[in-house]
Amino acid sequence: MGPKAIVLLSGGLDSTTTLAIAKNQGYQILTLSFDYGQRHAVELDRAKAIAEKFAAIESRTVKIDLRQFGGSALTTDVEPPTGRGEAEMSSGIPVTYVPARNTIFLSFALAFAEVRGAVDIFIGVNAIDYSGYPDCRPEFISAFETLANLATKAGVEGTRRCKIHTPLIDMTKAEIILKGMELGVDYSQTHSCYDPDSDGLSCGACDSCLLRKKGFHEAGLEDPIPYKTRPADTKD
Amino acid sequence: MGPKAIVLLSGGLDSTTTLAIAKNQGYQILTLSFDYGQRHAVELDRAKAIAEKFAAIESRTVKIDLRQFGGSALTTDVEPPTGRGEAEMSSGIPVTYVPARNTIFLSFALAFAEVRGAVDIFIGVNAIDYSGYPDCRPEFISAFETLANLATKAGVEGTRRCKIHTPLIDMTKAEIILKGMELGVDYSQTHSCYDPDSDGLSCGACDSCLLRKKGFHEAGLEDPIPYKTRPADTKD
Repeated sequence: MGPKAIVLLSGGLDSTTTLAIAKNQGYQILTLSFDYGQRHAVELDRAKAIAEKFAAIESRTVKIDLRQFGGSALTTDVEPPTGRGEAEMSSGIPVTYVPARNTIFLSFALAFAEVRGAVDIFIGVNAIDYSGYPDCRPEFISAFETLANLATKAGVEGTRRCKIHTPLIDMTKAEIILKGMELGVDYSQTHSCYDPDSDGLSCGACDSCLLRKKGFHEAGLEDPIPYKTRPADTKD
Repeated sequence: MGPKAIVLLSGGLDSTTTLAIAKNQGYQILTLSFDYGQRHAVELDRAKAIAEKFAAIESRTVKIDLRQFGGSALTTDVEPPTGRGEAEMSSGIPVTYVPARNTIFLSFALAFAEVRGAVDIFIGVNAIDYSGYPDCRPEFISAFETLANLATKAGVEGTRRCKIHTPLIDMTKAEIILKGMELGVDYSQTHSCYDPDSDGLSCGACDSCLLRKKGFHEAGLEDPIPYKTRPADTKD
């Protein structure tokens, strides 16, 4: 059996592919998900099913209340934007950015890793599609890794180095999807939409849906999930 | 009015003194406390009273569940050690160490700061009395500051640098107490004990009580709080 790895799992396309990659590298999988007052709880149900499919040895969901600080369309009543083109999506820091989210998520992953004797943490950040998020950049990840090795017993005692794995960081969405298909990901289990309806059906128009649809299109594959609407103009 | 500062406030002696220092430097105070499944809730009541005394413009308590990971005497059913001498206290990483606690606390402070337009965060870590905690060292704080400036909009846009203030880091407990007295801290409001009784009365024998008593003794002052027992041998 390989070493244990903590995989941050939202139930989305990227984190699910990241999980499949960690599993394929021989790690024993422990998933960590967050109930952070998302606008939609469907993500957490998907995360649970995906963890089971990949035979995670432990799956935890940590409830944290980021809503009380306010400040993001993903956790407050601000509507996320829809129907944007690539140029708009990649300009500036998006309204869907949640302040310090990945810092908080990685901090909990670090606590979980330390208690379980793991030093490997996987996170599905991507510097291409999410270029506007400060905490999806390689230099952020590198700084967190430095911090992790100063913050933990293993780091201080110099026994083992903590490693933040970001296998998707330089991949396009199409490459991510093709990699996941190769590793047996069932993308019908994944959820990407920022603003699903009450049945969990994806909107097809938010940034996340548009990036997903574009990814499948460029990969030459059919997206297996249904959408509430299927606009003819998918911006590519 | 000065700029806003986030002050991490546990209701203990160190964080209360840190708050007084931030206030004295002219900052508008926003306190952040954590309900993390401490063995004792008395801390949070004290934090609230202290924030009011120092006229904090906002006080938040974030509930986070570190207990589900296990691994520390402060959050699980492991008994904290009592009656230890200084040599024992300062050898190795203590059982009361909570994995990644300051990383998690600072991450939330960063989120709070970003949403409120603040770039100053105060934390009462001390590298002398808590030498066994990896996340109380200056190199850890410095690494977090680097991370913070990569993780946030303000950092990325280069508008203002995020600063983690640790005014107590090189002070002895006696120096901390004298500084606090000078700035009007009422130490009868603060709580230090790891293992108080059901009335919130301090045990007088855990590491935290012993350090506190030693601090008052060295400062030549009377500790204003009552203790459950007052052992004659206070290890100094």
